[in-house]
Amino acid sequence: MSMPKSENPSTLENAMQLLIQTFHKYSGNEGDKYTLSRAELKEMLTAELGNYLGNAQDKEAVDKVMGDLDSNNDGEVDFTEFIILVGALTVACNDFFLEYNDKPEKK
Amino acid sequence: MSMPKSENPSTLENAMQLLIQTFHKYSGNEGDKYTLSRAELKEMLTAELGNYLGNAQDKEAVDKVMGDLDSNNDGEVDFTEFIILVGALTVACNDFFLEYNDKPEKK
Repeated sequence: MSMPKSENPSTLENAMQLLIQTFHKYSGNEGDKYTLSRAELKEMLTAELGNYLGNAQDKEAVDKVMGDLDSNNDGEVDFTEFIILVGALTVACNDFFLEYNDKPEKK
Repeated sequence: MSMPKSENPSTLENAMQLLIQTFHKYSGNEGDKYTLSRAELKEMLTAELGNYLGNAQDKEAVDKVMGDLDSNNDGEVDFTEFIILVGALTVACNDFFLEYNDKPEKK
């Protein structure tokens, strides 16, 4: 997929472009090119979030994420559902970093 | 704020790190260092999203975004509220790109 790019994107615009690029890198492989099938979701989780989500080779783990994300039960994860997952993970990471940063000061 | 960095972050991990960095770049300037005050929100909107949101110098525009985002009415935007804004904007951008990409094929 080609995409118009800002000439001098800000850090935040850059992050938003990376989110869009990541989704379409996997969503285009099979079936509806604008949604993630179960196989595409598994590939994305393994390649992009292996450090966060552990071993996504585990079929049950992929099924659980798919079940949690696929709010309209069509067996596909659309871009909005993907953003909800990434947003929730980013909030969790931020909370972790804040605790990590506060700890040395409190000791 | 210092932050642990993955040694070889994936594209998605990189995007998540940029979101966290962007928020803390502005939230630390005054008051609670983990929330955006009205002034910090205005600075972030102007510097990071000027291309998307138009002229955030407009006080009414900043007040509207603050009113929409500040779901607990404490006059501050926390990280979760920030992620909801960025997520909604990213979904809107993605929709725009899909229309932009589909148009030449349909003609």
